[in-house]
Amino acid sequence: MKPFKLVSREYKKENTIVEIKSPSGSVLLGHGNCTIIAGPCAVENREDYLEISQFLKAAGAHALRGGLFKPRTSPYSFKGLGHAGLEIMQEAREITGLPLVTEIMDIRDMDILYESVDVLQVGSRNMQNFSLLEELGKTKKPVLLKRGLSATIEEWLLAAEYMLKAGNQNVILCERGIRTFEPYMRNTVDIAAVALVKELSHLPVIVDPSHATGKWKMVTPVARAAIAAGADGLMVEVHQEPDRALSDGKQSLTPENFLRLYEQVMQISTLNRSQ
Amino acid sequence: MKPFKLVSREYKKENTIVEIKSPSGSVLLGHGNCTIIAGPCAVENREDYLEISQFLKAAGAHALRGGLFKPRTSPYSFKGLGHAGLEIMQEAREITGLPLVTEIMDIRDMDILYESVDVLQVGSRNMQNFSLLEELGKTKKPVLLKRGLSATIEEWLLAAEYMLKAGNQNVILCERGIRTFEPYMRNTVDIAAVALVKELSHLPVIVDPSHATGKWKMVTPVARAAIAAGADGLMVEVHQEPDRALSDGKQSLTPENFLRLYEQVMQISTLNRSQ
Amino acid sequence: MKPFKLVSREYKKENTIVEIKSPSGSVLLGHGNCTIIAGPCAVENREDYLEISQFLKAAGAHALRGGLFKPRTSPYSFKGLGHAGLEIMQEAREITGLPLVTEIMDIRDMDILYESVDVLQVGSRNMQNFSLLEELGKTKKPVLLKRGLSATIEEWLLAAEYMLKAGNQNVILCERGIRTFEPYMRNTVDIAAVALVKELSHLPVIVDPSHATGKWKMVTPVARAAIAAGADGLMVEVHQEPDRALSDGKQSLTPENFLRLYEQVMQISTLNRSQ
Amino acid sequence: MKPFKLVSREYKKENTIVEIKSPSGSVLLGHGNCTIIAGPCAVENREDYLEISQFLKAAGAHALRGGLFKPRTSPYSFKGLGHAGLEIMQEAREITGLPLVTEIMDIRDMDILYESVDVLQVGSRNMQNFSLLEELGKTKKPVLLKRGLSATIEEWLLAAEYMLKAGNQNVILCERGIRTFEPYMRNTVDIAAVALVKELSHLPVIVDPSHATGKWKMVTPVARAAIAAGADGLMVEVHQEPDRALSDGKQSLTPENFLRLYEQVMQISTLNRSQ
Repeated sequence: MKPFKLVSREYKKENTIVEIKSPSGSVLLGHGNCTIIAGPCAVENREDYLEISQFLKAAGAHALRGGLFKPRTSPYSFKGLGHAGLEIMQEAREITGLPLVTEIMDIRDMDILYESVDVLQVGSRNMQNFSLLEELGKTKKPVLLKRGLSATIEEWLLAAEYMLKAGNQNVILCERGIRTFEPYMRNTVDIAAVALVKELSHLPVIVDPSHATGKWKMVTPVARAAIAAGADGLMVEVHQEPDRALSDGKQSLTPENFLRLYEQVMQISTLNRSQ
Repeated sequence: MKPFKLVSREYKKENTIVEIKSPSGSVLLGHGNCTIIAGPCAVENREDYLEISQFLKAAGAHALRGGLFKPRTSPYSFKGLGHAGLEIMQEAREITGLPLVTEIMDIRDMDILYESVDVLQVGSRNMQNFSLLEELGKTKKPVLLKRGLSATIEEWLLAAEYMLKAGNQNVILCERGIRTFEPYMRNTVDIAAVALVKELSHLPVIVDPSHATGKWKMVTPVARAAIAAGADGLMVEVHQEPDRALSDGKQSLTPENFLRLYEQVMQISTLNRSQ
Repeated sequence: MKPFKLVSREYKKENTIVEIKSPSGSVLLGHGNCTIIAGPCAVENREDYLEISQFLKAAGAHALRGGLFKPRTSPYSFKGLGHAGLEIMQEAREITGLPLVTEIMDIRDMDILYESVDVLQVGSRNMQNFSLLEELGKTKKPVLLKRGLSATIEEWLLAAEYMLKAGNQNVILCERGIRTFEPYMRNTVDIAAVALVKELSHLPVIVDPSHATGKWKMVTPVARAAIAAGADGLMVEVHQEPDRALSDGKQSLTPENFLRLYEQVMQISTLNRSQ
Repeated sequence: MKPFKLVSREYKKENTIVEIKSPSGSVLLGHGNCTIIAGPCAVENREDYLEISQFLKAAGAHALRGGLFKPRTSPYSFKGLGHAGLEIMQEAREITGLPLVTEIMDIRDMDILYESVDVLQVGSRNMQNFSLLEELGKTKKPVLLKRGLSATIEEWLLAAEYMLKAGNQNVILCERGIRTFEPYMRNTVDIAAVALVKELSHLPVIVDPSHATGKWKMVTPVARAAIAAGADGLMVEVHQEPDRALSDGKQSLTPENFLRLYEQVMQISTLNRSQ
């Protein structure tokens, strides 16, 4: 199979490093280190979010995630705190100095989210929401582009190309598992895709082992595999008490398990740099 | 596997019939007849569109399709005439009396398309664009909801539920093939899904054999199968000269082949009613 | 995508008609009629099998199916009566005059099954058991080749080619659903594949809606679709009391439902010939 | 989803270590080290095979692979040297002292292969060839069971259970990629499956990055990921001159690239043991 044409690749040969600005300085994603974005699936309440954020800062995480607008399959499910959660996230940023990552689902939230957070995430279901991609392309805000549930690598890179073409080079790819026939885990992590997009594209790539597997016991092995395969970072869900999480508790790590994951992947990352 | 819960189904037992208003009266979709929506993939120019529309009217089609905003995998592909094509479609409606079906991709086009066309189509890539679904749910405009490329039947019906919950009962489901490993055809038509959603849901369902197969030779056999399996109608691409179509020519029927398809599926539909 | 090369197609342009010999004359599969192979999933005991066989004969079925060696995912499941069931099937053939179809799983059963039954079935799991295919290719016995669960059309036709190349032209293809992400039905019937293999190959093709869907309510709609799409016949599971079947009861039709299916598909088949 | 029942797991809690006997002592697979099986896809001729075998011995490989009977999609492709290649492999074993791994495709080859090689491989296409599994289960010979192309984890482990139940505990699982919609690589390595089967089963598991990806550039990243995720070893294709290989050259490593892979995965394996 012949590689499809990535216009952006023709004039850019070196790898892109995305600078994520934060109160306490910048995080450089794609610079050879392992960047870890962590947090609960959804921002649920002020107390819990501030607590877990401070834990994550102390544990070494580089950015905070938190869902405000949760895309839910059923209209009857919990959909997140919405704008009310934004102030909670901003307070966490003030306390920890860590940059914020949240998903944008609706083009009409662009202005408020642009002002308030540091990385805008495009979820799997919106990977080919081309209107949204074009708007994001007009900014310089870092965008985390998740791979669609059944997107080919070509479609994923061409979705990124919508933003690159419109002028925004700060795009981070995120592999989060694809849909296959296997019922035991939520999705199938396409580990070879990590290495492949590093070769085809100049963009950094991270892996989300939490959504990909849907099972916390699989998160650390997949995270280790991701870094060993060359990923530039991870996005991981952490919750004080996964059992009482309002969404996706089964895939969330406890703080204790996060510490173990962190230590292990950093050792693999160190080994990578020495090889 | 236990059926998922469709709240809408609990208070509505009889099947929904969607009334599509048009200058020359109404089309009732889901009423036991075979409703055929036909037209080129994209509106390309005035002359061609008016010509094919008049042919389709004479041939017995019930509604006209035409793409104005084409969602394209690559940002470098032809994306449709956009608003400029809208006047052409409206002129075709005046001449033929047939209602218009076109895709809405951007929530910001809502007002203009609501005023101008008779059925708003939500494409596969936007099946879980929940903001868009919620806006469409606030209207009474008929919506054609295509199944996502890798959407389960549960996800598809719950996407419809977003609109039903918001108040719009005029939802038409459209099976258009799912993504599988088979490389020979573009997608795999899930024919059993037609029968299954007729049982699980109260909504009418049609099939798009053109996008599903990507090969014009397969369009008529799949259209026949769809009606035999109980579909309420079809959406079919027709082009005067498929070889010079700007998009998806390979899956478009010639006018001559459309006449054959029409005759054959109507005979199966007549047989259905007698059985 | 370029069609792969089917050597057999180069020297054989007309469609193959497979003659299935039986005590009461021959069944010609691929001759423009709808051939129906029916019976329970497994031969369970003499009384039941003889009863259902006589019902099927009276109802118009053209051949009897019955599993003797059931390939089961788990080694702890019921695996069929084995050779003990063979005499029961032969007795049914004597009584009804209908030819017998059963699956061969082990190359070492070749001699006994060759002598005893009229069509040898190669199941999905063995579609690429090339040793078995080559042995079957050395005979003239009709072979029913089921498509593998995730076999591409190319792989399926090339598996048939193993037998054609070895000298056996009496090959019948059987579409039985492919594995996709959809959890609601057992497999996804690839209805367009029916039309496609009719074009690419000269072999007749039938559809097994029972195994494909795993739900008896879907069997008749899919059977109707299959014949409308051009299939040469069906293989359908029927059981006196599906609830007490030792395997696959959920997908078996009752005798009453089989009569309805039979009548409906024959009407579609009659319509096909007049079109 | 509830775990399916693995009877073997109920009476065996500790992990199985498979002892592969060889002229120069035993290889223990599943003992915490990284075991590497390497060699060309097919044994092509004596000179090449002996040369590459000696290179692999010197490079640290633990066992030699070599295809004698190649299962090929098309009956017109090169199918391997068959029994003629067996003497070549045995000569390589004498010279290097390394044990031999080859695929068994036909139950009738059982006796000769049982006598001649040290690990019998069951390929993807035969994962549910239950007759073959039962025969292998009656021996004590180590068996390498590749996951079927679209086998669920449950089906894979239950296929292993056929051998365990029959009495052979020396089963090694091999993840080799599953079939998905992604056309760019041959298959999609299911990296989380490695961790999952280590938890559900007591059997050792290795990964074949060569067949899984079909692209040599992806072999080393995937091999690294496999060991980081907890795999007990690798099966890797190596060829002196991949460009002139009779089969699967595109996925074969050169000797030079194999040396790099070896060094890198051993460092990850060492890190694993220290964590």
